[in-house]
Amino acid sequence: MTHTAFPAWPAVAADLIAVAAGRVPADMVIRGGIWVNVHSRETLPGYDIAIHSGRIAAVLSDASAQIGPDTQVIEAQGRFMIPGLCDAHMHIESGMLTPAEFARAVIPHGTTSMFTDPHEIANVLGLAGVRMMHDEALMQPINIFTQMPSCAPSAPGLETTGHEITPEDVAEAMEWPGIIGLGEMMNFPGVAAADPKMLAEIAATQAAGKTVGGHYASPDLGADFAAYVAGGPADDHEGTSEADAIARVRQGMRAMLRLGSAWYDVAAQITAITEKGLDPRNFILCTDDSHSGTLVHDGHMNRVVRHAIECGCDPLVALQMATINTATHFGLEREIGSLTPGRRADVILTSDLTALPIETVIARGQVVAENGACLVDCPHYDWPASARGTVHLGHELAARDFEIAAPEGATTVRANVIGVVENQAPTKALTADLPVRGALVEGQGDICQIALVERHRATGEVVNGFVSGFGYTGTMAMASTVAHDSHHMIVVGTDREQMALAANRLAEVGGGISVWRDGAELALVELPIAGLMSDRPASEVAERAQQMMQAMRDCGCELNNAYMQHSLLALVVIPELRISDLGLVDVRKFEMIPLLELQP
Amino acid sequence: MTHTAFPAWPAVAADLIAVAAGRVPADMVIRGGIWVNVHSRETLPGYDIAIHSGRIAAVLSDASAQIGPDTQVIEAQGRFMIPGLCDAHMHIESGMLTPAEFARAVIPHGTTSMFTDPHEIANVLGLAGVRMMHDEALMQPINIFTQMPSCAPSAPGLETTGHEITPEDVAEAMEWPGIIGLGEMMNFPGVAAADPKMLAEIAATQAAGKTVGGHYASPDLGADFAAYVAGGPADDHEGTSEADAIARVRQGMRAMLRLGSAWYDVAAQITAITEKGLDPRNFILCTDDSHSGTLVHDGHMNRVVRHAIECGCDPLVALQMATINTATHFGLEREIGSLTPGRRADVILTSDLTALPIETVIARGQVVAENGACLVDCPHYDWPASARGTVHLGHELAARDFEIAAPEGATTVRANVIGVVENQAPTKALTADLPVRGALVEGQGDICQIALVERHRATGEVVNGFVSGFGYTGTMAMASTVAHDSHHMIVVGTDREQMALAANRLAEVGGGISVWRDGAELALVELPIAGLMSDRPASEVAERAQQMMQAMRDCGCELNNAYMQHSLLALVVIPELRISDLGLVDVRKFEMIPLLELQP
Repeated sequence: MTHTAFPAWPAVAADLIAVAAGRVPADMVIRGGIWVNVHSRETLPGYDIAIHSGRIAAVLSDASAQIGPDTQVIEAQGRFMIPGLCDAHMHIESGMLTPAEFARAVIPHGTTSMFTDPHEIANVLGLAGVRMMHDEALMQPINIFTQMPSCAPSAPGLETTGHEITPEDVAEAMEWPGIIGLGEMMNFPGVAAADPKMLAEIAATQAAGKTVGGHYASPDLGADFAAYVAGGPADDHEGTSEADAIARVRQGMRAMLRLGSAWYDVAAQITAITEKGLDPRNFILCTDDSHSGTLVHDGHMNRVVRHAIECGCDPLVALQMATINTATHFGLEREIGSLTPGRRADVILTSDLTALPIETVIARGQVVAENGACLVDCPHYDWPASARGTVHLGHELAARDFEIAAPEGATTVRANVIGVVENQAPTKALTADLPVRGALVEGQGDICQIALVERHRATGEVVNGFVSGFGYTGTMAMASTVAHDSHHMIVVGTDREQMALAANRLAEVGGGISVWRDGAELALVELPIAGLMSDRPASEVAERAQQMMQAMRDCGCELNNAYMQHSLLALVVIPELRISDLGLVDVRKFEMIPLLELQP
Repeated sequence: MTHTAFPAWPAVAADLIAVAAGRVPADMVIRGGIWVNVHSRETLPGYDIAIHSGRIAAVLSDASAQIGPDTQVIEAQGRFMIPGLCDAHMHIESGMLTPAEFARAVIPHGTTSMFTDPHEIANVLGLAGVRMMHDEALMQPINIFTQMPSCAPSAPGLETTGHEITPEDVAEAMEWPGIIGLGEMMNFPGVAAADPKMLAEIAATQAAGKTVGGHYASPDLGADFAAYVAGGPADDHEGTSEADAIARVRQGMRAMLRLGSAWYDVAAQITAITEKGLDPRNFILCTDDSHSGTLVHDGHMNRVVRHAIECGCDPLVALQMATINTATHFGLEREIGSLTPGRRADVILTSDLTALPIETVIARGQVVAENGACLVDCPHYDWPASARGTVHLGHELAARDFEIAAPEGATTVRANVIGVVENQAPTKALTADLPVRGALVEGQGDICQIALVERHRATGEVVNGFVSGFGYTGTMAMASTVAHDSHHMIVVGTDREQMALAANRLAEVGGGISVWRDGAELALVELPIAGLMSDRPASEVAERAQQMMQAMRDCGCELNNAYMQHSLLALVVIPELRISDLGLVDVRKFEMIPLLELQP
């Protein structure tokens, strides 16, 4: 590992003192700005910030004494000086980017701290994969803290992941330098049932004095919620209503309000502050999931803060929700989240607190972005072969691997069909009477085939089924190794030859997304790292993703967020019907069901 | 050590979950109260609190499912349920009581958590004494967290303490179970000068992830203040003006507003919230020093909260300043400071949020006080002989030990005299021409003798001087082994025989305060533990202290806080003139000066 540890406050305290006292010049002085003070919740014109060793030495009305011949002076020219923005909970893999390229994409947006849960790679590569993400995170010029994934597999017994995370893994990871806590405890029924494994993970985190992330994805605020809270999770980003946010804060959790590429949970919840007048200190903003296109075209935490302000939130309160509130939550209030002595010198210059243009970004005392351009190197981890070659199919697939045999003599068969619903994460559990041709069950109309192709252990297993709702026409197939949460490979298609071509193509390139029609590849997003991430720049990945979504449309699919629908079809914790490497899963009952019904 | 460790949340999480879910009955249910929610800053009528294993399992609108045949049900009857109060910074020794007796005195006032800096005993017994205080603290039914003393001696080179505290001591103490951080870093010139010893203590505390207490006792908010803040202290209770409080909060410290027996610093500072409208989250209430009489007659943190409310503070904000703000500051927001699941069940029932009568106090799920009466045992540590026999005079003192020889042939002598100023901690550096009788310099008028009697190492040394301002008349003396901060023995008297009698009496009883007149003892406060504390109840100590202060008045002293003036005369960090075991100290220049001036 090649990361350079950032020196702790005590290691440079004597220098900071000397600069503050005016005995030694600063490395950098930001001069003549409006100090946005998130501790007192004030804007204070006419302040200078003196920086040394990457940390703030002093915030003064006149830092002349801190300016020497070698001091870099940045003229704030009356602009606002705000703390670098913090993303309190997010998954880097959602951008299909490595930590380095994710960092490079968000730095110009003013994000200087992220709390990231590498849950996806944990399912593919286990603790080793988490460590790789953690190590690349620590190499970056901004602060990327790692939340140790808690739930791999997400649904024990209903799927087989590449690796599993154990309480022993959690305890081990708590000793790593970049681990800040436990990633979202998604197994909320497990916590409410006092599952010893889940409680052991929480206990290991609490024993280390770190923060337990929550994930309570249910509208039930009764006994199950009470039991979950009693188990120890300290925050939750799954709330979607004002009542959700209020309940979490009242019960001593922090409510994380989420604006991701496909999550819009801020507006409904922020009324707890703007209308109900609750103390805002326990509300925090986060993204959870950002696609590369969002990062390239729309922004990151700056987009979330702007949105909160558009929802009627006081700009200073909105900024607190993306700075000091987050820092306090993770026990880092003396390290990040405000422009005060000793803290890392993470500063944004902006001329407008509402529109929030991100004009200059300083991270750890270094100018890292100016007017949307990243000016700093974001070093790449040397990803090993084990992380780059994760698509293990066992054998080259052929059309016959996707054949669904009909019961002998049947001419039509009643099948259980996964029904995709536009703009909803839950699917419908449908049934359909499907034709049999040549002893094989065939899709018809909008019902096409879906396959879950095992890719972690080279078992060669293919689980076949049917899915409706994509609207595909013609002779096509689409395959993806982003297949939450176990991240096998999901192949959807109207034609078994095309399905085999798409699947084999992903094996060839080490993972990603591939769309085929009439024997030709329409689009390819290469995601060679764990089959989840590219180490190419966000703009390039966003363009490839755009082509992929266009290819889906070209094949007849007009759904919103069509790719997300595809990649979530194996997520066996969200109702109603999903597919896993073990078969078809009725998530209403958490049990396996057969693909074909007995004939009446 | 016999303290029972209170089980951590994870140790009882399964039980809390089961109670919250309604599967297992609670140990205790508080039924039908108004939930004072310090997270959301709301009062919420109609809530029940279910408690198990000393922690809160759930706060629900109906805890019927949590009530079993053995559940203790407390009827709140519509009263307010508020979190137990926290004293964010204080010295137990100031009450002249052991931790156990201090706890017993404050429990009926609703104090359930204290952050205590055993700075006084550290000067007498060093790290071993700190450990004794720490151990007795952990034996109590309420939460007493220990701040490791940082500055013994307070003034290196100007006094000799019984023991010294080193950075190595600090590092060692950070491993103890009850240590919450570093006690007030009083050596603010040292921090501003980057004194390696002070920085090493701060570094050891920060490395342990604990809180560095501050003490910046200067009105200068310029370079020295900036340098001090850059050094790392995280709070300060020495502010006395609104500007002080605002400066501390803006610079990322927490402002602790103090109402002690003799400190009145809330009213002037709380306007930062009530008038300037600053975010109140970084303001905290504390007592710093409470005399036993205050505890017996006036209250403790309830007195401070009431006072803040009288100053115009919103009662909910005032309560936050004595609960969750404090907990958050010390990294304990998931352990104490609010009525939410997992936290220690420290609850007060009160029928009025403004007058704040403390009707019922529950600590760790046990009713510990009702209507002013403590209902719980506060166990005593088995203080060893080393802590009980700390007055080592070397030899029995006689009048001759207090003689001040005049230069040969002199008939009058010009002497430097410590001038006590009523209602002020600083003294005046006076000079006076004093008569010589029988080759000895004598006091006259309101100028009497003062002696600093070495009592830690039995050197037999007595440093003699003169003091004015007490107004003593007749033939009297008063001795005290409470003699901040080095806690030798200060003897003040109009007569050398009486001075010897008083000093020898304290050697006989192991320390305390003794007042003599005409060969008879008028009052005695026995403080056998380190010469600083009694292990008798607060009411008894308060009565003895009352008698002692009456004795001072009977000897002609009419000063306010006369005893405090006496005990601070060796505090060689506060200007202008003090006495130490090394001689007379001019604290304006931090240098020794002679008692007698050369004759003109």
